[in-house]
Amino acid sequence: MLGIVTAANVACGFHAGDPRTMRAVCRTAVRRGIAIGAHVGYRDLAGFGRRYLEVDPAELVDEVLYQIGALDAIAGAAGGRVAYVKPHGALYNAITTHTGQATAVVEAIRQYNPALPVLGLPDTQFLQLAREAGLNTVAEAFADRAYRPDGHLLPRSEPGAVITDPYEVARRSLRMVVAGEVTAADGSIVPIRPDSLCLHGDTPGAAELARAVRSALLAAGVEIRSFVA
Amino acid sequence: MLGIVTAANVACGFHAGDPRTMRAVCRTAVRRGIAIGAHVGYRDLAGFGRRYLEVDPAELVDEVLYQIGALDAIAGAAGGRVAYVKPHGALYNAITTHTGQATAVVEAIRQYNPALPVLGLPDTQFLQLAREAGLNTVAEAFADRAYRPDGHLLPRSEPGAVITDPYEVARRSLRMVVAGEVTAADGSIVPIRPDSLCLHGDTPGAAELARAVRSALLAAGVEIRSFVA
Amino acid sequence: MLGIVTAANVACGFHAGDPRTMRAVCRTAVRRGIAIGAHVGYRDLAGFGRRYLEVDPAELVDEVLYQIGALDAIAGAAGGRVAYVKPHGALYNAITTHTGQATAVVEAIRQYNPALPVLGLPDTQFLQLAREAGLNTVAEAFADRAYRPDGHLLPRSEPGAVITDPYEVARRSLRMVVAGEVTAADGSIVPIRPDSLCLHGDTPGAAELARAVRSALLAAGVEIRSFVA
Amino acid sequence: MLGIVTAANVACGFHAGDPRTMRAVCRTAVRRGIAIGAHVGYRDLAGFGRRYLEVDPAELVDEVLYQIGALDAIAGAAGGRVAYVKPHGALYNAITTHTGQATAVVEAIRQYNPALPVLGLPDTQFLQLAREAGLNTVAEAFADRAYRPDGHLLPRSEPGAVITDPYEVARRSLRMVVAGEVTAADGSIVPIRPDSLCLHGDTPGAAELARAVRSALLAAGVEIRSFVA
Repeated sequence: MLGIVTAANVACGFHAGDPRTMRAVCRTAVRRGIAIGAHVGYRDLAGFGRRYLEVDPAELVDEVLYQIGALDAIAGAAGGRVAYVKPHGALYNAITTHTGQATAVVEAIRQYNPALPVLGLPDTQFLQLAREAGLNTVAEAFADRAYRPDGHLLPRSEPGAVITDPYEVARRSLRMVVAGEVTAADGSIVPIRPDSLCLHGDTPGAAELARAVRSALLAAGVEIRSFVA
Repeated sequence: MLGIVTAANVACGFHAGDPRTMRAVCRTAVRRGIAIGAHVGYRDLAGFGRRYLEVDPAELVDEVLYQIGALDAIAGAAGGRVAYVKPHGALYNAITTHTGQATAVVEAIRQYNPALPVLGLPDTQFLQLAREAGLNTVAEAFADRAYRPDGHLLPRSEPGAVITDPYEVARRSLRMVVAGEVTAADGSIVPIRPDSLCLHGDTPGAAELARAVRSALLAAGVEIRSFVA
Repeated sequence: MLGIVTAANVACGFHAGDPRTMRAVCRTAVRRGIAIGAHVGYRDLAGFGRRYLEVDPAELVDEVLYQIGALDAIAGAAGGRVAYVKPHGALYNAITTHTGQATAVVEAIRQYNPALPVLGLPDTQFLQLAREAGLNTVAEAFADRAYRPDGHLLPRSEPGAVITDPYEVARRSLRMVVAGEVTAADGSIVPIRPDSLCLHGDTPGAAELARAVRSALLAAGVEIRSFVA
Repeated sequence: MLGIVTAANVACGFHAGDPRTMRAVCRTAVRRGIAIGAHVGYRDLAGFGRRYLEVDPAELVDEVLYQIGALDAIAGAAGGRVAYVKPHGALYNAITTHTGQATAVVEAIRQYNPALPVLGLPDTQFLQLAREAGLNTVAEAFADRAYRPDGHLLPRSEPGAVITDPYEVARRSLRMVVAGEVTAADGSIVPIRPDSLCLHGDTPGAAELARAVRSALLAAGVEIRSFVA
């Protein structure tokens, strides 16, 4: 995967990852010139951060700071640095509507380094709060996930939530980037204007999907570059 | 306690502590002008880091980096910074003799910030390795712990390992600082030249002990100041 | 506390407790003839099980079984046994309205031992589902907690949620047991018919509160006995 | 794997496994008539139980009880039961020489159910202590691991510690069972009289290895049956 993409979201030990795996990913990312992102999540190793947790916003600020700082120390020792922040899993979804937790994530990034870009779902409360706080926001679309008509992701518990056919993934990616739209799970057309495309490393055939997307975009004349300056 | 001491060792979540408690201690420390130290330990919440763990040195480097970085992010948000590193519990003891783990701790500090002072037991392999790596070392003595004849701490499992009488604690402290010696558990005299005195916050009556030590030192004309520049 | 009460809820390691503390409580409970209850909770040590967690009901069945079995093994070695089950914290509250999780807890108890009584908030979906599944249910009231007008507990985040005045706690307990009612936080009268009274061991002055309740009930001629046969 | 073997060691959540995976393995084991074993280990998820941990023997008794009880509850709900106990990883190795921890494991099994067989390395202090305590002991050999001349396993950190060639694994297995000997890593011949053969499910090609061993034993006229009565 890391040979194809321009940025790697690194789990920081709260929902997955540990210092050793963090170091290994950072080392590879630095060698290949890939941006390192802090993939901050709920403190829920047992559920891989994919379950909503009613954490208090004040505590969430500290937990996000903790995760970014831990990764930055390891990235630094590997010759890199945390170049952006992207919330993970259930936290990523919760902050599209949960004002308290959304504000907490924004606040943590602002306290750590207000120059760090943050990734999120387009047109959501989270990205708006982040912009208002002066953060650089990056709207992202998911190449390998189905969408609901409201522009949110179809939950993983629903059938068809994860798309694994390379042709389909490439075709959807191209349409989102070029035409600014995607077909939702119910057949409706959803407008979407992503700054970045995301593929999950644990989706079956992830590397092949990444290559298919990359080829389709390049063939269509789309320039692929890192969202990190 | 934090009203009396000059430095606070903050547990970083591996053997104790969590982002919320770390923030609370950092906030108080910044307000009172107390130096914040990364109290790095084994990944063993269940045992409070007081049990030896055969962690691989390469992994230990990453774990120590992770802990320092996590605390530094939170200290930074509280207006401070990690000003020194002090290994905790079983790790503190293990690195007096375990070369691999001692080197790992030294290496992690060096990779994070070679200007960070590190605390350890006087005349041990750990402090020597740290000095050889160019780190600033601070030899410390324990005001509230009994010593073995070889200058190591009497393990907590032994009777009399923790000293809780304020007069006795103050008397021992003064003798270590002024006369450079302490009476070991077997009655022998052990030479010790501490740069810093440590008191455990969880020793019964810790605040009173701290006041007693402080008074005794001041009354004897000893100047108390932070080992952090 | 254990000298005054008739039953002890023992945390099973998911939100608090560990094998050593479980053994210590079981040993004391057996010595004093107090019933041992499995205090099952969300897998959230960091939050002491007091935060809602969106755990999948199928997984929750297994997690509750795991906790009961673990405690029963330790209780057995101490000469006792798990005599009832009581969900803890956020799980206790969630299952008053969350059908999936309520059914999961009921199912776990049924699979482990359908003769085990289960404690819950009176007149809730959870106790009804438990009764329908053939379990023995015990409706309980909280001596040291404020109530909402709907008969649920006032969340701990609200001011006045925990009552610590011994006289007030004793007076409320007596009124719930004898008159079948309690004054809610908004001043309204809430009907309540508890089979059991609960006091939290971590409420300040818990032992004193327990004695006050016990005295008030005995003085009023109420017979105190274990809900466990 | 579970289609080929007669017993499955189930991790109980301390070094690996969680209630959901425990249920899944128990369900399959019950369906296929395979004995369920409690694979008890150190409380070290981060290290997969493969690192020595200096846990206090008294606490270890409770931790082993906890793990067996937890698995037994889940096995029971799946229509089975814990049929034997086998320590895992670093604990398995430590108790061959660490008397305190060996005694703790024996004591936990005895307190839970003295009729449970326990597996261990042949001719070790652990199996002897278990026998003296009246437990049924099963001496086991490892089909996919290299041996030291003293009959202990070559640590996983050493090259050649894990054997993955099906022919070699089958040949060694047959020789251990039929001839009562195995060639150690240094070429010396080590006598070994196993009651049971173990294959690790995470060894590359584990299922193929299991089939190869099974075929070789059956071809040689060895009867394969469960060590559980």
